Amino acid sequence: MEELLAGYPVVIQLPVAWGDMDAMQHVNNTVYFRYFESGRIAYFERLELMDRMKETGVGPILASASCRFKFPLTYPDTISVGVRVTDMGEDRFTMAFRVVSHRHQRVAAEGDGLIVTYDYRAGRKTPVPQEVQARIQALEGTG
Amino acid sequence: MEELLAGYPVVIQLPVAWGDMDAMQHVNNTVYFRYFESGRIAYFERLELMDRMKETGVGPILASASCRFKFPLTYPDTISVGVRVTDMGEDRFTMAFRVVSHRHQRVAAEGDGLIVTYDYRAGRKTPVPQEVQARIQALEGTG
Amino acid sequence: MEELLAGYPVVIQLPVAWGDMDAMQHVNNTVYFRYFESGRIAYFERLELMDRMKETGVGPILASASCRFKFPLTYPDTISVGVRVTDMGEDRFTMAFRVVSHRHQRVAAEGDGLIVTYDYRAGRKTPVPQEVQARIQALEGTG
Amino acid sequence: MEELLAGYPVVIQLPVAWGDMDAMQHVNNTVYFRYFESGRIAYFERLELMDRMKETGVGPILASASCRFKFPLTYPDTISVGVRVTDMGEDRFTMAFRVVSHRHQRVAAEGDGLIVTYDYRAGRKTPVPQEVQARIQALEGTG
Repeated sequence: MEELLAGYPVVIQLPVAWGDMDAMQHVNNTVYFRYFESGRIAYFERLELMDRMKETGVGPILASASCRFKFPLTYPDTISVGVRVTDMGEDRFTMAFRVVSHRHQRVAAEGDGLIVTYDYRAGRKTPVPQEVQARIQALEGTG
Repeated sequence: MEELLAGYPVVIQLPVAWGDMDAMQHVNNTVYFRYFESGRIAYFERLELMDRMKETGVGPILASASCRFKFPLTYPDTISVGVRVTDMGEDRFTMAFRVVSHRHQRVAAEGDGLIVTYDYRAGRKTPVPQEVQARIQALEGTG
Repeated sequence: MEELLAGYPVVIQLPVAWGDMDAMQHVNNTVYFRYFESGRIAYFERLELMDRMKETGVGPILASASCRFKFPLTYPDTISVGVRVTDMGEDRFTMAFRVVSHRHQRVAAEGDGLIVTYDYRAGRKTPVPQEVQARIQALEGTG
Repeated sequence: MEELLAGYPVVIQLPVAWGDMDAMQHVNNTVYFRYFESGRIAYFERLELMDRMKETGVGPILASASCRFKFPLTYPDTISVGVRVTDMGEDRFTMAFRVVSHRHQRVAAEGDGLIVTYDYRAGRKTPVPQEVQARIQALEGTG
């Protein structure tokens, strides 16, 4: 497990719900994006991004998301979701997600999300705030 | 169909999504409450309740909800959700919901929701505004 | 916490997901029924009800569900869901659910579910199997 | 609208539900993947893929999915989801999805899904059945 999540500075643990499964009796594809979202929000908390948004009006927008499904999760299981930032641009950064099944000790899915920083008051993209950049670098050990 | 929804002044039509089904290959129980919610919001629009809330800070709170499942919905199907107000109190009213399957021409589920009017600015329950009462009575033909 | 869940023989713990919240910035009403469902399934596992269903074709049907919302849950929080059986009939039993917020150390919601035992092969209601009754009584301390 | 969906042989129409919105008061990112799924299932029906799976044990697996979010959908709105096959491999094909907002007459999101045909009885990937290939070519006008 630890090896599978090495290099992911933020990891959350979630139970697979019976109701996450669909008529194919596997966890439904949309639920993986919910897992990614929960991981993303946990990472944002480490950046104090959501609190910052309330003060400054600058917040994250999910511009794109993707998932590669490796094997189907089923209930009962517990998963760990690893999150890291793989790429930093001026007004954007890319997050990578990895979902690991505790029951199977295997990677169930991997994905990416492109985050754009947006100034909601001005109504336009804006550079990633320096303090947010610094916190990402500190988390990722790339500062 | 029309007979099954007689007496419901607000009726919305929704497709059953494949993804609404769970591992039992029936529409999951939580989805019926989403159907009720969609019906409730449609009714609220007829009362201009959501717009009103932005102006006055007085809005609806769902205090309780219930559903009686008559037969299991499956994909593909289309449903109609009928909504009516069955009871008016000083600071609350009760809504009744009926879900009818187009494929089976039968009632799939019935339920209730208790709505309390809440003054979000004052932080307490508040009487149902007179204009809202009047609109409900007009819709229900009980004015 | 322990006092709030006294008398509930099955208790599960779940994280509140950010994505469980709706546009009112509270956990959406349908999600409480998902919490109940997760608690119900955990209880069923203690009865070996789902495994039994595969063998005998006799399984549970949710005939009705209700929830009384006490105060709105928000992210971040962790909840405990307590489950107990409050009433046994010949071909049915009633489950009670209680959702407790860890952050607020308060009951956020309570609800009920009516379970009917159904013989899927014969296509009709069937008495609650004796072994299931015995397991419920053992769990509830009423045997 | 028609121009925006030109070249998509399968188009379904869906209402945006109030409950599809999250705490940011936009339709939640996971819901777009549900829209894609509904479109995918509608396309599969045109291929009789789900019926075929019951007979032959050969069915589709979603191997990967992606979405590019163009602008945020909000309630109330109605969307059209266009679906087409953009690429055919021996044991796989790629589907493209486009979500168009009726209210805004604009593309809200685009995405892709990679479908692998899987022989559930043999437990391995299998070539796309010839009749399925032929139906795709007929739908896409590439036969």
